[in-house]
Amino acid sequence: MTVRVAVDALGGDRAPDEIVAGALDASSPGIAPILFGPAGLDTHGLPLVEAPDVIEMDDHPVESVRALPDSTLVRAVRAVADGEADTVVSAGSTGAMLAASLLHIRRVPGVHRPGIAVVLPARKGPSVLIDSGANADARPEHLLQFAHMGAIFAREILELTDPAIGLLSIGEEDEKGSQLTLDAHALLRESGLRFVGNTESRGLLEGECDVVVTDGFTGNVALKALEGTIRTILDALRRELESSFRGKLGGLLIRPAARHLRERLDPETYGGAYLLGLRGLAVIAHGNSSRRAISNAIRLAARGVDHDVVGRLAARLPERRASATV
Amino acid sequence: MTVRVAVDALGGDRAPDEIVAGALDASSPGIAPILFGPAGLDTHGLPLVEAPDVIEMDDHPVESVRALPDSTLVRAVRAVADGEADTVVSAGSTGAMLAASLLHIRRVPGVHRPGIAVVLPARKGPSVLIDSGANADARPEHLLQFAHMGAIFAREILELTDPAIGLLSIGEEDEKGSQLTLDAHALLRESGLRFVGNTESRGLLEGECDVVVTDGFTGNVALKALEGTIRTILDALRRELESSFRGKLGGLLIRPAARHLRERLDPETYGGAYLLGLRGLAVIAHGNSSRRAISNAIRLAARGVDHDVVGRLAARLPERRASATV
Repeated sequence: MTVRVAVDALGGDRAPDEIVAGALDASSPGIAPILFGPAGLDTHGLPLVEAPDVIEMDDHPVESVRALPDSTLVRAVRAVADGEADTVVSAGSTGAMLAASLLHIRRVPGVHRPGIAVVLPARKGPSVLIDSGANADARPEHLLQFAHMGAIFAREILELTDPAIGLLSIGEEDEKGSQLTLDAHALLRESGLRFVGNTESRGLLEGECDVVVTDGFTGNVALKALEGTIRTILDALRRELESSFRGKLGGLLIRPAARHLRERLDPETYGGAYLLGLRGLAVIAHGNSSRRAISNAIRLAARGVDHDVVGRLAARLPERRASATV
Repeated sequence: MTVRVAVDALGGDRAPDEIVAGALDASSPGIAPILFGPAGLDTHGLPLVEAPDVIEMDDHPVESVRALPDSTLVRAVRAVADGEADTVVSAGSTGAMLAASLLHIRRVPGVHRPGIAVVLPARKGPSVLIDSGANADARPEHLLQFAHMGAIFAREILELTDPAIGLLSIGEEDEKGSQLTLDAHALLRESGLRFVGNTESRGLLEGECDVVVTDGFTGNVALKALEGTIRTILDALRRELESSFRGKLGGLLIRPAARHLRERLDPETYGGAYLLGLRGLAVIAHGNSSRRAISNAIRLAARGVDHDVVGRLAARLPERRASATV
């Protein structure tokens, strides 16, 4: 089966060149990228669906999605809703992707809120953080659903048979946390998932849990703290090394080790995050995605279609519908 | 003037040896540590106030503080309330320190909630994160007060004349964030402080703002994400280097640069965090504090007394009392 991937050619800081290049890289017998971009875009032979408008990063998500139905982002999302593509990838505005996906792809029945599932490059192996930014305010029952979605993601995409689910909080003891986490903790205890209790953000890069559940505000803060710290430290180390001859020589010698570390921690390895809970699969790539990040995001999207993540999610979530209040 | 610092000799994972050693290191003509510990503790000549009980890290904060009034932690806190010491330092349970301080030292009139102010070792120089864990749930008016407290801390302790205040959120645009941050944003705009808007956690180690304001849940998650990432990366780099001869040689050469970096990022440099908003100054040290961390925490506490942080806070905060609703 060939997976048709709608790609927003104008999404992200390095569009359209790096997007087109990434789509070309990902193109294979199993993956057919379709670019959504302006007339005349050089796609190097990939199919182009013309879309005249563009949504900028700082446009208001909901308003721009409604005002610009023929933007590259909205057209690419609509292609999934209309069955013209199996999945969609954009490095454009996360808010606009969320708004367009809610409007056109729509939620799986029973899902309160879609959640963003990001793969963390933890030491013990990849783990998933959900929600990493779709919902700034969440309720306990939303966190319960994120846990179920994250578990399905971990099983189908990370190939973990019985993923351990942790709740991000500010102490490992059951009674530590905000009212939201205390209430979510109680729901997770009854969920039937392998819930291992609260987990702290200091263990995120260690990989103490396979799935880390949190609200979108906290998840986004934690994710960006990780990314920022990784970048600041690697940059600081580079500057330290460049400040002396001894450091420069040492820097040459440690280059393979440092590169190995950098590659493991590189967010481009996965390239994108799933927006879960929709009737179709949407992947949000980092705003400054390179061709490598885009091609990996497209492969990630195709893998989600191959593993029928949406179907499995739809099949398992509704049974929780009765027990959860919206 | 000599600052009398009450030190909880049984607080923290490495008590009492490292606590006593740190107190000895900090002892000077300007700083007089007083140890609160069990009878017979070898204090190497420092004054000892006998306290028979101990509060463990996993004891319930409020219950243990009430049940163990003669614990080392509570007695040390009470010494400040009773005027027998000018400030108190403990590496014991943060929750117990908060509970004991609220009960005995009590809040400055007009302060809704005390906040924990932590110094971050940012690239552009130290900055302060408040609240980093005292209140898991906060309201917008609490964040406004944290901003004022943080500004006073930045001026008096970090010696920044006109500190830039940022609100930790998940996007720099004014309209990005949770309902809590949106409401706090509006209050901060009217605060008279140099409020520079929302700031993201990816900039925490860069030092984009001098004071980063947030609720205790988010602040704690961000702080631990920083600490965990720093440790994981430096450990991973060390492991990478040890895995080959070339790496080992390079590792030897980069040792001074790596040590420099590690020192800058070391939480022990400040050793402790202020609990602000009380009628006396309390400093909470890291649970696994070494003697160096403890001696720095004691110096930090003494500096706060020298600069009359409590008096300045009390003098400035009440004028906001009328405009804020509890």
